[in-house]
This record gives sequence, structure tokens and C-alpha cells, in this order.
Amino acid sequence: MSEILKGAAVIGQSGGPTVVINQSLVGFVQAAVQADCITAVYGARHGIAGMMKGDLIDLGKENHATLEAVANVPAAALGSVRMKPVTEDIAKAIETFKKHDIRYFFYIGGNDTAETAHIMEQQTRAMGYDMRCFHIPKTIDNDLRVTDHCPGYGSAAKFVAHAFQGDDRDNRSLPGVKINVVMGRHAGWLTAAASLGRRNADDGPHLIYLPERTFQPEVFVKQVEEVYSRLGRCIVAVSEGIHDADGKPFLQVYAERAGSAMAGMKDSHGNVQLSGTGALGDALAGLVKEHMGDIRVRADTFGYLQRSFPADASEVDRKEAREVGRRAVEAAISGAHTSGSIALKREEGSSYKCTTFVTPLESVAKYTKDMPDEYLSGEEGVTQAFRDYALPLTGGVSPMTDLEGHSV
Amino acid sequence: MSEILKGAAVIGQSGGPTVVINQSLVGFVQAAVQADCITAVYGARHGIAGMMKGDLIDLGKENHATLEAVANVPAAALGSVRMKPVTEDIAKAIETFKKHDIRYFFYIGGNDTAETAHIMEQQTRAMGYDMRCFHIPKTIDNDLRVTDHCPGYGSAAKFVAHAFQGDDRDNRSLPGVKINVVMGRHAGWLTAAASLGRRNADDGPHLIYLPERTFQPEVFVKQVEEVYSRLGRCIVAVSEGIHDADGKPFLQVYAERAGSAMAGMKDSHGNVQLSGTGALGDALAGLVKEHMGDIRVRADTFGYLQRSFPADASEVDRKEAREVGRRAVEAAISGAHTSGSIALKREEGSSYKCTTFVTPLESVAKYTKDMPDEYLSGEEGVTQAFRDYALPLTGGVSPMTDLEGHSV
Repeated sequence: MSEILKGAAVIGQSGGPTVVINQSLVGFVQAAVQADCITAVYGARHGIAGMMKGDLIDLGKENHATLEAVANVPAAALGSVRMKPVTEDIAKAIETFKKHDIRYFFYIGGNDTAETAHIMEQQTRAMGYDMRCFHIPKTIDNDLRVTDHCPGYGSAAKFVAHAFQGDDRDNRSLPGVKINVVMGRHAGWLTAAASLGRRNADDGPHLIYLPERTFQPEVFVKQVEEVYSRLGRCIVAVSEGIHDADGKPFLQVYAERAGSAMAGMKDSHGNVQLSGTGALGDALAGLVKEHMGDIRVRADTFGYLQRSFPADASEVDRKEAREVGRRAVEAAISGAHTSGSIALKREEGSSYKCTTFVTPLESVAKYTKDMPDEYLSGEEGVTQAFRDYALPLTGGVSPMTDLEGHSV
Repeated sequence: MSEILKGAAVIGQSGGPTVVINQSLVGFVQAAVQADCITAVYGARHGIAGMMKGDLIDLGKENHATLEAVANVPAAALGSVRMKPVTEDIAKAIETFKKHDIRYFFYIGGNDTAETAHIMEQQTRAMGYDMRCFHIPKTIDNDLRVTDHCPGYGSAAKFVAHAFQGDDRDNRSLPGVKINVVMGRHAGWLTAAASLGRRNADDGPHLIYLPERTFQPEVFVKQVEEVYSRLGRCIVAVSEGIHDADGKPFLQVYAERAGSAMAGMKDSHGNVQLSGTGALGDALAGLVKEHMGDIRVRADTFGYLQRSFPADASEVDRKEAREVGRRAVEAAISGAHTSGSIALKREEGSSYKCTTFVTPLESVAKYTKDMPDEYLSGEEGVTQAFRDYALPLTGGVSPMTDLEGHSV
């Protein structure tokens, strides 16, 4: 076991934000200012980029009321960054650490963020700079390994479930085919959450397409047609990450087929931009119109609202996000770990309860976790086992009520 | 003054739904079942279409708990319809009315719905069929004449304000240009609500484009560039109804410029589809990229969530929507009116309060109400006078909190 290290702590936020990522920040700050061995509590603006530049603020001076208010504000209060630092970048950050005697490094984010923490640990150890390196999990994608689920997912799942409930009602009012595109490039966890507000067999979404399965456009249009002919309407949940058998994004395949007409959708590397655009939904709506002719077909792309809408966070998610921030400090100062990632473990029992534990950085870094087969089904897209897993994380989604509809 | 008429009542819901339209339905049912002169309370499936077919349900048999639950469910519980009935259609509906001795006609919707109620009144009067015809207002567009505002708007405005608050935070985390497209084809009321959660000068949206003004693409890209160079980021709120000096939708102009590349966006009449597609946002993002080069530009189209998201309704809006449904019954059975539309009047005083009154159907039918000049400004898009008008309708939007950011 390592000795107790005395020094300052720094924290950064990285990757796509969530509505509860500041809960983790605040949980961290509240625990860190209490720790005797932590001499100062710094926040880096825009993650590793701020550490490299020495762009730090003194979080220890924030007052309690400000922190509690910031905890409920979506997106990274310190600013975020999308950057995979190379050796020279890490070296620059370590210069900042030396200047301020920073001995505790905390990084809130997903698998790439855990990877940065892992590299930081290796590089500081190699140069003999004594440092504790911890990863605090967050991602709406819910695709981290080891942990039962990721802080940030429950709130995004609740938003998506509510969005589909409302859209299903809208579509009952004015029937047609409605396609909604949900975030999650590599794993279908968030798209699958579209099912969490369903109660009856005719509640939407009626079809769910996830990146864990190969997307076959010709099967898709036939399945839409079948539902539409049966119910007179059809709600579809589609992951932005749907792809062909070779793993090529569907939109890329579609754009190549369409040729120059889609040129504007490609970036300078010739890749198709998936988020922050309505192109995928519009392409799928186009396929349905081609196949089914002149019926009402609409597409919405839920976009960044899924990770930033401030008025529908999950209370369970809020509490757990706060807890993983606090637990990272406890693990770092305990002397039991020199590094690690905080993970959640679901306890056995009839009511939902999670505890935390520390897992090695390399067990979380780099690779992501797809949905397991037991959560996937052919017909409805997802199984009851998935819904039992995911619903408690949202804090619950109330079912919609129909009129009884007594005949005249 | 008219005599008290004895007979059954029918109600329908029409046009694009809102999250509180069922509050009006339930307010109506609860009042109608109490009225001695109303012998039965029917609901027509999909508005006038259900009346023509005799597709009715007996709302008088719904139990109290069901009605209270349905009141909180978004979108039209009876189903909606987009239909401007012609003389023969109205005649068919009147056949249904005669069969069930229906003497009270209520129709929840916007200006087209008021127009249908007006035509119904004229046609029943011309044929000597004694009938009371009332319009109950709803629209997220807030574009009805006479009334201070429209039930449905407050909740949609709250959703849009929250969406921009969250997106502004997201954009601070990962800066760039972000364009969000908001519903409202003819009037900018809902897009203007994007400003309701702003607190500081650097809070987004930084630019707001409304259909009350001519949209000039070359001015738009310059204004985005100016904000971006000043703040390092830019959030834009755009109404789906932006148009050129001739009133032609911007997307139509853009599509004609782009030629066959945009062919897929046009319907069989050559018109560009505005809602249920991400095309407008993507086109605007394309313009910014053309002008500013390789910076991060994203677009989201909020879509049907604005009128259907179940978890963020305004409590003020809920109550008022309930009240206009109830008041329509009271007006109809009072003997003081043979027809009319229920309107809201804002009372003088420092705290927000609205009462209702009855206005003639023809004062609300057909034409819509744009935002007045006093609510529009060049720089920020909208004035403080607009925010003072709109904020109470949302029930309030809490400001976001920043870290104090003490320097190290």
C-alpha cells in the first residue's frame, strides 16, 4: 500500500458533457477541501488543454451555495475538451503540476478520458514524479466497461424515454411514420431507452435499430411498412451509429450511393458527420417515402438536448454522479490505491441500490462496452431484461394514460 | 340573448397538438357533465373527421381519475386532424349531430379551427338547425388574434427556453457555432422564447432570426462571424419560417440555388417540407461553413419535442388550458352567447394574472398575429418588453449558475 501523499489536486472534465457531470465535480470539490493531505483544489479549464497551459481556477474558494447551484447546471462547468494527449502534451501538463505541487490528478469522462488518466499515471511514474491518477466516469452512451452503468446515462435515458412517450402521443394524434435519431455512435444503450415509457403493445417506438446489429435498409423499409399497415402509424428509434455488415455507417453508404448530392454532408476527410445534423433522419425518411409512396413521414434528430436538457435529470443519476466524485477523493487519499476508476456495482435485492468500487484504469480505458445479447431481441429491439436494468437508473418513467373511450 | 338550449355536446381537437390540449378537453368535460341543459357529452375522434363519420365516444362515462391522468398527457387524447372542411363535409357532420341531438359544438385548436367553428355556425344557422358553436384556443405558435396569449404556448416556450439554456452550456463546454431551428412557420413567438433563460450578455442565443423580419443569408453569416470572433462561439435561434423579401421560405430559395442536390427535400408539389426534417438547420450550417471555413458548426432541429415533451409543462399554462375548456361550457350554457372563442386578458398589476372573456369567432378565425414591433429589436432579436410578456406564461425559468472562478 502506498504512503499518504501531500499536495494539491487538479480536476478536469473531458468529452461530451452530461446533465450531471457537474454533480461529480461538486462531489469531488466537497470531499477534496475536507482532505488534510490535499493542500489546494484546482480546476483546469477545458481539461488537459487547461492543464497544459496552466489555465487553472481555485475551486477551494468557491462558496457552498455556488457549488450546489452549479451541480444542477448541465454540461462541463470547467469547460470540456476532445483531445488525446501525446507524450509532449502530458509533459507540458506535468510542468504545470510541478509548478503548483499538484500530486492528485482527477479526470471526469468516458473511456478516452480513462485512457488519458492511464497515460498520465505511466508517464509520471516513469519520470519518478509521485502522483495519484483517478478517473471519474461519465457518459450518456453508457458504454464503459466494468461499471454497472455510467453516471449521465440515467438522465439521458429519462429524456429519451419521455421524448418517445410524447412523440408517440403526437403520432397518435396525427398518424404517420415518424423516425427519431438517438445519440450513441458505437453502442445502443441510449437508443434502447426509447422503450422505457412503453406500456401497451401499440405504444411506440414500434421498431428499434441499434449499432449492435447490422442495419439492412431493405429490411427496415419492410418492417416499417408492416407496422404501418397494422397500426396505421409507426414510430422508429434509430441509433446514429447504425452501419452495414462491414461496419460502415449507414449514412456513409447512403451518401456514396447518392453521389454528389450529399457532398455537403462530408467533412474534409470525406467522412460523414453524424451528430449535429439531421441528415441521417432525413435519409431514412427518404427511403421510407421511396418505398411506401405518398404517406406522412417525418424525422427528428434529438441532438444535443439528450445530453444537456436541464429540466429532466434523473434524481438517481444526480446522486450517483455526486457519489462517484466524492468516492474518487476517498480512494485517492485512502492509501489503498495509487490510481483507478470509480465503478458502480448493483446490489442484489428487489429494490435498486448501487455501491462503488475502484477498478484499474486499464480495465476501463480505450475499449467500450456494447449491449449484451440478452438485452437484444429481434422483434421489439430490446428485451424486458434490458428494461429491468435501465428503468431504475431514470428514477422511473410514468406511463401515459388513454381515455377509456366508452362507445356511444 | 338566446334561450337556453337542451341537447348533447360534442368536442373535437384539431391541428398540431400541445402538451396541455388535454387540460382543455378535461376542463370542458368536467364542466359539461355538470350542466343541466347538456344531455350527453361526446368526443369526436380526429375532430371534424370523426364528426363526419359518427366516430364518437361517450366522455360523460370517463371516470374522474382517468380524466385527471389524461389531462397531463401530451397531444390530442381524441386524436387530431388537419382538415378545412367544405360545405359537404359540414353537412355530413350535421347529419351526425341530428342523429344524436347534438346542439353544442366545441372545437379546440388554432385559427383554422376557429374558422371551422365559424363555418359550422353559419351553415347550421342557414339551415335552421339551432346550435351553439365555440372555439377553445390552443397553439404553441401563440399566433391567435385578440387573446393575450394561447394555451400551449407557455409550455412550449418553457421547453425552448430550457433547451437553449442547456445547449448554451454545452456550447461553452465544447465551443463552436450552434444553430437551433424552432417551430413557428408564420410568427416568431416560440423562437423568441429562446431568450427567456438568458441572464448575462454572453448567454446564448446570441442571435435570433424571426419570420417577422426578412432573412438575409449574407447578413446572417456576417453576424455569426462577428459573435464568434468576439466570444469564440455562437448560439443561433432560427424560426423554421424565415423567408426572403418576397416571403419565399429560405429553404426554398436555398434549394433552388442548390438545384437537383436538394431535390429529395421537395414534395410532389415542388414545395420544401419545413418541419419533421433537419434540412433547414443543415442548410444554414452549410452557409456558415462556406463563409467561415473549418470551424465546428452544428445544427439541431428541436422538432416535435417542442409540442409534445411530457416532462416540462408550465403550471401556469396547464391551469389556463383547463380554465378555457371550462369557460367555453359556461359561455355556451349562459344564454349570453350563441357562439364565440374564449380569450385571455392580462390584468393590470405587478403580479401576473389572466381572466377570460368571449370574443366573436370571426375575430379569431383565418388570420394570425405576428409579434409586434415593440417586441422586436435588431441586435438581440427581441426586447425586454417581450421577455416581460412571455416569462410569466412559462411559470418561470431559473437562471443557470457559473463557477465563481477564483484565479490561482
